[in-house]
Amino acid sequence: MTLLFLEDLVVGQRFDSGFHQVDRAQIEAFAKEFDPQPFHLDESAAKASLFGGLAASGWHTAAITMRLLVGGGLPFAGGLIGAGGEITWPQPVRPGDTLRVESEIMAITPSRSKPDRGMVATRSETRNQQGETVQILLAKLVVQRRPVDG
Amino acid sequence: MTLLFLEDLVVGQRFDSGFHQVDRAQIEAFAKEFDPQPFHLDESAAKASLFGGLAASGWHTAAITMRLLVGGGLPFAGGLIGAGGEITWPQPVRPGDTLRVESEIMAITPSRSKPDRGMVATRSETRNQQGETVQILLAKLVVQRRPVDG
Repeated sequence: MTLLFLEDLVVGQRFDSGFHQVDRAQIEAFAKEFDPQPFHLDESAAKASLFGGLAASGWHTAAITMRLLVGGGLPFAGGLIGAGGEITWPQPVRPGDTLRVESEIMAITPSRSKPDRGMVATRSETRNQQGETVQILLAKLVVQRRPVDG
Repeated sequence: MTLLFLEDLVVGQRFDSGFHQVDRAQIEAFAKEFDPQPFHLDESAAKASLFGGLAASGWHTAAITMRLLVGGGLPFAGGLIGAGGEITWPQPVRPGDTLRVESEIMAITPSRSKPDRGMVATRSETRNQQGETVQILLAKLVVQRRPVDG
């Protein structure tokens, strides 16, 4: 995996992550620790809810997305350091879903005060095996410039 | 804990969560599974990074915030079902930090098409034991109306 610096990025550039399969045990383990609501823990309670069946916590989808981005979905030198972002969950993630993330560079803003870095706006769509979008994340990431020798 | 329906909410209403203490083992376990970057896993690598010391993944902070909200920080009948939101991380979370969440109702919009629910905009600030804000989450949540008898 070639790691990219700020100078290597252009607006419109696209990146594909690897894949992650979600199962019931992962959904329940995450929910138990961080989002213990019946529709994330229990199939029959979930059937009676707005979700109509067991669904992963949106924060679980966000965490899996981060795993896919860190694992090569956004190969930035210096890693992925976010100042924040906007997140939406158009569709729930279900047991058995296989997720992947498609990302695009939306804007590149070199820092005025810190010459070694810039801010990069990204749009990352997390999709399931049917191509349905389960999460859209608009993030702002700190990206390093290539170090200058000598 | 009294659970609140849409009719029970007013703009400006505030809620306080309980507390959650974060330790190094939690930070490393979450990072290992979802955000395996050196500044979330290794103290000496973290010292040399932008964070200047071991810091929790922002997505871990988000997940802990959700745990505090679900545990009474936002006591809505029908649970906390989010369509999305905006998130920022002004300060990192460190090992030993004790987090709590202060939330405020920002807007209430009854659904025109679905008379049993409405959309509620919330602002949730996650703070550490020094009162520093480590996360701001602006969320839009689906909240149920009180069921009508007969």
